[in-house]
Amino acid sequence: MEKSVSDTFAIRLDSAAAQVAAALEALLGEAPLDGEIARPAHLILAMRHGVLNGGKRLRPFLVIETARMLGAPEDAALRVAAALECIHCYSLVHDDLPAMDDDDLRRGQPTVHIAFDEATAILAGDALLTLAFDVISAPETDLPADARLRLVNALSRAAGVGGMVGGQALDLAAERVSPDEAGIVKLQAMKTGALLRFACAAGAIAAGCDDAIVARVTRFGEIIGLAFQLADDLLDVTSDAATLGKAAGKDAARGKGTLVSLHGAPVAKQKLAALVDEAEAVLAPFGDAADTLRQAAGFIATREK
Amino acid sequence: MEKSVSDTFAIRLDSAAAQVAAALEALLGEAPLDGEIARPAHLILAMRHGVLNGGKRLRPFLVIETARMLGAPEDAALRVAAALECIHCYSLVHDDLPAMDDDDLRRGQPTVHIAFDEATAILAGDALLTLAFDVISAPETDLPADARLRLVNALSRAAGVGGMVGGQALDLAAERVSPDEAGIVKLQAMKTGALLRFACAAGAIAAGCDDAIVARVTRFGEIIGLAFQLADDLLDVTSDAATLGKAAGKDAARGKGTLVSLHGAPVAKQKLAALVDEAEAVLAPFGDAADTLRQAAGFIATREK
Repeated sequence: MEKSVSDTFAIRLDSAAAQVAAALEALLGEAPLDGEIARPAHLILAMRHGVLNGGKRLRPFLVIETARMLGAPEDAALRVAAALECIHCYSLVHDDLPAMDDDDLRRGQPTVHIAFDEATAILAGDALLTLAFDVISAPETDLPADARLRLVNALSRAAGVGGMVGGQALDLAAERVSPDEAGIVKLQAMKTGALLRFACAAGAIAAGCDDAIVARVTRFGEIIGLAFQLADDLLDVTSDAATLGKAAGKDAARGKGTLVSLHGAPVAKQKLAALVDEAEAVLAPFGDAADTLRQAAGFIATREK
Repeated sequence: MEKSVSDTFAIRLDSAAAQVAAALEALLGEAPLDGEIARPAHLILAMRHGVLNGGKRLRPFLVIETARMLGAPEDAALRVAAALECIHCYSLVHDDLPAMDDDDLRRGQPTVHIAFDEATAILAGDALLTLAFDVISAPETDLPADARLRLVNALSRAAGVGGMVGGQALDLAAERVSPDEAGIVKLQAMKTGALLRFACAAGAIAAGCDDAIVARVTRFGEIIGLAFQLADDLLDVTSDAATLGKAAGKDAARGKGTLVSLHGAPVAKQKLAALVDEAEAVLAPFGDAADTLRQAAGFIATREK
């Protein structure tokens, strides 16, 4: 019996996740690298707890698949993917802290500050964030110096005050004063969109593509970032806790404005379909080579958790 | 009347501090850079609060003076210096958090989590840490790509799990189980030594020096790191709160082992003098050009707060 497209895609996603987990595992050894003095065992354990937690590894997957489509070296792309996952995971570790979202569980496991303590969770997050830049800038990421530098710079801007961290700050503020539609779009573009956008751009930068190609895959990343968020907001109103593996209806309970709460689910579903079409159009010039990224857009829009 | 050596040195230190503050001020504007989406005003304010606090800027000073001695471009050295200060300041913002040292005041001002709130302080620290890598990797840091990459990598290793953050983790652990002398030396080399070592190495990397020179100034940084810590530990037992501007006797009160508590102040003072001699010897090949760094070693060893 032939495998369906979605089966093939699921296998690819799982296999990339396994590769990324192995790469992260290797990066979080106890032996100090050149220029390091020692790696405290306890802190390494907390970092591993925050990172090796069976995540879907969607962001690294996008790095790997964009890199593959554009012909970037696989090993280097995997390192960049792992670095990006360090950033994503550090943000979750800090987000779960009592002063932030105060979550005790993530993927059914105690969060880092519960499994260790709050101070260790803060430091583990800091260390993961720092490690991301180590990994990309190291000579082992076998790309031309210019490409590595561009990656470091793009990642810092996607992750920092003008990207992910800034989006988290806007999200905190949104609990006090509800943002309007433009405010919601900006918040989401920063909080979740910036890293997805970087993921796709990174593959093109690693492949040494010209600016037009980098801009095209960056746009693809931007579109699937919007789709990811819209799908998330829809799931929050249409799904239940058993399917999601986390509480549903959280946004409404927190009075958190989303495009779904503003326009209703039917309009949001139309927008989502339009985004998938737009993603298709952006990928068209890459032909069949873009098939996995096409499926990724579909997966992001239709996932059930 | 001629100015004394220490007056000249003090003027140089102050003037570098002013330059660094101006550079940080410029880096923490509200206008988003290329690749950033927006810079939330509230988060920028919190970052500025954590950074523009009248610090001595010793680490940036060492970058600037090592760079000057070795002929690195001044503007680039200033940017690297400012990036390093972002790392130092983020570590203070996180260190002051309730889950860490729980300090309400720093330099007589409310700490970031007091002036803003805990969540904002966590995010401001994260954003400052991320910004450091943006600043060094950006094309505005006008150095060859290889030099910028080396700086990014060296800074990430000095600041991360194998350096400063790792040292903070060891410091937390030391409150439960007192480390032996080797443990204290390692903890201090990581927690405070690593950034001072990077500061000196950075000047040489920015100047494009060969490995032997980089190693020599790195060794100088290592020595003054030890001297800095020893002087700090001595001040804690010999000074008073009015002079220090913070509580004295804190180490003993916390049962915190230092080389001073292990060997007594007289032996520690001898060690300190020996370190200053060693610093002199390491600088000898640079002749008069190293005068400011020589004075810096003396300043670090004999400072009264």
